[in-house]
This record gives sequence, structure tokens and C-alpha cells, in this order.
Amino acid sequence: MTGSRILITGAAGFTGRHACRHFAAAGFDVYAVVRQGAGEPFDDGCRTLACELTDSSAVRKLVDGVKPDFALHLAGMNAVAESWKRPADCMETNLLATIYLLDAVRLAVPACRILAVSSMLNFSMTSGAPKPPHPYSLSKTMQLLAAQAWAHLFGQPVLFAQPSNLIGPGPSNGLCGLLAKWVADEESGGASRPFTLSSYEEKRDFLDVRDAVAAYSAILQRGEEGAVYKIGSGLQRSLGDTVEAFKRRSAADLAVTLRPNPLAPPDPDEVDLTFISGLGWRPAIPFEQSIEDALAYYRQRRG
Amino acid sequence: MTGSRILITGAAGFTGRHACRHFAAAGFDVYAVVRQGAGEPFDDGCRTLACELTDSSAVRKLVDGVKPDFALHLAGMNAVAESWKRPADCMETNLLATIYLLDAVRLAVPACRILAVSSMLNFSMTSGAPKPPHPYSLSKTMQLLAAQAWAHLFGQPVLFAQPSNLIGPGPSNGLCGLLAKWVADEESGGASRPFTLSSYEEKRDFLDVRDAVAAYSAILQRGEEGAVYKIGSGLQRSLGDTVEAFKRRSAADLAVTLRPNPLAPPDPDEVDLTFISGLGWRPAIPFEQSIEDALAYYRQRRG
Repeated sequence: MTGSRILITGAAGFTGRHACRHFAAAGFDVYAVVRQGAGEPFDDGCRTLACELTDSSAVRKLVDGVKPDFALHLAGMNAVAESWKRPADCMETNLLATIYLLDAVRLAVPACRILAVSSMLNFSMTSGAPKPPHPYSLSKTMQLLAAQAWAHLFGQPVLFAQPSNLIGPGPSNGLCGLLAKWVADEESGGASRPFTLSSYEEKRDFLDVRDAVAAYSAILQRGEEGAVYKIGSGLQRSLGDTVEAFKRRSAADLAVTLRPNPLAPPDPDEVDLTFISGLGWRPAIPFEQSIEDALAYYRQRRG
Repeated sequence: MTGSRILITGAAGFTGRHACRHFAAAGFDVYAVVRQGAGEPFDDGCRTLACELTDSSAVRKLVDGVKPDFALHLAGMNAVAESWKRPADCMETNLLATIYLLDAVRLAVPACRILAVSSMLNFSMTSGAPKPPHPYSLSKTMQLLAAQAWAHLFGQPVLFAQPSNLIGPGPSNGLCGLLAKWVADEESGGASRPFTLSSYEEKRDFLDVRDAVAAYSAILQRGEEGAVYKIGSGLQRSLGDTVEAFKRRSAADLAVTLRPNPLAPPDPDEVDLTFISGLGWRPAIPFEQSIEDALAYYRQRRG
């Protein structure tokens, strides 16, 4: 796809940085969209553009200027705790910004293929009043429904990915990012503090962020319009095993405190990779490698 | 409810004007919210406040200032044709403004009972991707879902009404409003032009706007939190009969042109009034009276 233009929102985030690198290496002209004042421009030959995505006219100007062939929409408020504190902002950031982006693309470049990254934390709508577990889940579920409805109304090629927990090198507030940062902190001395875990038995699916980006690329280029692609490693791993994987890579004296979360959701179902495997994608980076790379990232920042 | 404060949004609209009058007469302190520059203040002892409801901090300031006991949220973009032209604005106006209002009330007066007026044009969500017939339907369906979910998350007392087609005196862009205006125009001379109708057989439920406001009052004061109250006359009337009701009230030479609408939805189900009748409400104003009053309104403006 040499010469194709791709707009990547949330480009300064954990996934966004990997995505910019990936698409630039694949020969795309990458337009990396970041918040006003979100940091310095990217290397790797990406063009960095600042835009407030909750400002509809700014989004219109952005899309008019770039006229992308593809858009990878990663931007959003991505934290459950934050969504309880600022629920209206969460709806604005996750739902309305997506509508603005879809609408700007509809007007400027209707054939542009847009991938919106959804969440495994979506709740399922059944009959009766909807009962999301938190505002984040509400915002992401509405984002998906609104974008699918939009695609139906205007015939736009919109695609969706539902990733599991992304891990690997870079600044991440996910569990493995927090563990990697903690290990690096403990190794560098300073006040020793235990890591607080909700349970050893709870299970999660972890996927390397670079594998996720490869999946996004496959979906953007060959995915079925309107479809939702679940992506993950397909493996369930207990939080206890996850912590152990970090501990055995360090000589530091690492202690864990258990603080059970009475509101913890049940273990998720295994991620079914049948649909995404139809695009020729499967996870390639082993869990152990992701852990190594996450640790290396935080050790380097500490060093 | 003498002395209770009620905030009424969309107060300058067809329903809003009647609502302000109704609640003021019932002894409420009425705070009538209108758009910036939406016209002169109301009589009937209402306080008029200008506010842009798509501006979250303006909404916060509004609610902080009034600290209402009740809120009747009538404001919104209320036209299918307009929603096709400005779909993102429609989502912002109908969905996001509702979230801003709920959130401002949550922070300032969490016990305030809020009635959001939904629409008979909502589409039903089944499994699979949502397929609304137009952006207006998408916005109103999302408004209902988001507000119900919000009520679930924060325990706010939110209520919903789904009215049928409102008719009666005042400026309305509904079918009967357009017919009344047309008759008054024809009677006052000027270029004679036929009224364009999609079909004589199509059926609708028409409810007087003053009856609707009485229902909103009952729901606000005695309705079940989270519930959706359908309101209507309970009678289906053909468009042909509706036109005839206007024609036989005028000596003017009135001609109708048929222009079938291939996208016309099927006739709606009869409005089931069982649930709302539990609040002691039923329609009181006969159809013929609504027609008379609609005609009188437009004839007076012409005269």
C-alpha cells in the first residue's frame, strides 16, 4: 500500500506509537494525530498533526486536509476509573469524537476505510433497560452501535476490532505495564512497596501490542465492512502466573499484596480467533517476549 | 407542587410553550430554557434563561443556578429531513445534550426527577448491527439507551415519555400544523397551491399537545423511575380523514396532490395506553377540538 494515506488518531498512546511505526514501515504515508500539546513529533517519517477530536470543525479541517485512504481510530478515554470521575467527558471523547470523525470522512473522502477500536469491556444489550457496569463500558458500547448504525445509514466502510489486554514495550496503564514499571522501580532502589493484586486466580487474555497492530492492518486492508473482529492470544492466563513471569526475570525482592475486588467481573470467555484468522492473521509474539520487552522499556527509562 | 422548581428545555418550541403555561398554572416555579436569541421572554410568570445545551459548562452553570426539583427535557433536533442534512449535529443535540443535562443534575441536584421525551420513531435493537431508518431515529434511540444506562449507573430518577404525533394550537411542523397553516394561507388569498400528501390510507395516532403536557406532568410527579411511558390518543386515523377534517372547516377551494413515498414506514401499532393509564392520565381533548385550535392559531397569525 505504498503511497496510501493513513490517519492514525491517538497516535501518542501506547498502541498509537506502535501503529505509526508499523504503517510507516509498510510504506504508508502516516498522519499521526495527537492532542494539542501531546508531545514532540514522531520520528519514522510520520507527519504529526494536533487536533482536538471533540471539536467537530477541527476534525472536519483535519480530514479535509489529509484526505486519507484509511483511518485507524485509536483515540479515546481508556480507563474505567477515569470514566467514573468524568462520565460526560468519557461519552464525549469515546462516542461523539467517533461520530465527528465518521462524519468528516463521509463528507470529504467517503471511500476511506475506517477501523474503530472497540473494547472487550462492552456490555451486551438485551431486552429491557441497558445495564452497563461502568461509564467506560457504556461509552464504548454506544460507540460501536452508533458507528455501525452510521455505516448502515451512509454506506461508509467502517470496521471494528475488539482487542483483549494489550501488552509489550511502551507506556501502558494495563496490568502488565504496571507490573513492568513496578519491577523497574524496585530494581532501581528507592522505597520498596508491594504490588497490589486483586486475585491470583482471575484470568485474562494478553496480546502483544505489535500483534494487535498487525491485526488492525489486516482488518483495514482486507476486513469485511461493518464486521467486528475479536483479537487476542486465544490463551487465558491467571494473574498469579502473570506476576510470576515478571518476578522470575528480576533479582529484586518483589512482594505482592492481595486486595480482592468484590466487583471483579467473571473471567472472560476465551477469545475466539476463527473470524480474524480468515484474514490470515494470528498472534506471533510469545507472552514471554512481550514481558521481556515491557521490562526493557521501563528499565531503560529508569536507567 | 406549589413552589417546586421545574426546568423546561426547548421552552420556545411547540410543546415547550404549552408546558411552561401548564406548569406555571399548576404553581411551579418555571425556568424556561431557550436557545441564545430564541426570542422574547415568556409571559405567564416563567423565568426565561438562554443556554446552549451542547456546551457542557453552560449546562452545568444553568443547573447549578436553578437547582431544579424537576426537569422536563424537550429540547432537540426534531426533524427527520434535517437529520439527514446534519447528522453529526443531530447526535450532538439529541444525545450529547441529554448526557450533559443528566450529568449536571447528578452533580448539583441528584434527586431531581428528569423526564426525557423520546420518540415513536425509535428503532428496535435486535441482535446484529443496528439498522436505523434515519439519523433522527439513531439519535433518539441512543438518547433513550444512554439515559437509561446513566440512570442505572448513578441511580438518578430518570423517566421517559414516547409521544405519538402532537397536534393543537401553536407553531408545529407536524402534519396537522402544516395542514392548518396551508388552510390559513389559502383562505387569506395569495397563490393557490395544493397540499402534497404521501397517501390517503396511511394511519397515524394524533394527540393534543395539551394532553401530552398533562401526561408529562403525571409522569414527572408519579411515574416509575427508568420507565418508558407511551402516550397517544389510542386511535388510528387515516391521513385522508385528517385532511377532510381540515377541508370541511374551510370555505376555501383546497386541493390535494398525492405523491407516494416509497420509503414510508408501515402503519404504527395502536398506542397501548395501559401503562400510562396507571398514573390516572387519559386523553381529554377531542381531535376535532385540536384541529379547530390549530386552525384558529394560524388564522390569527394570517389575520
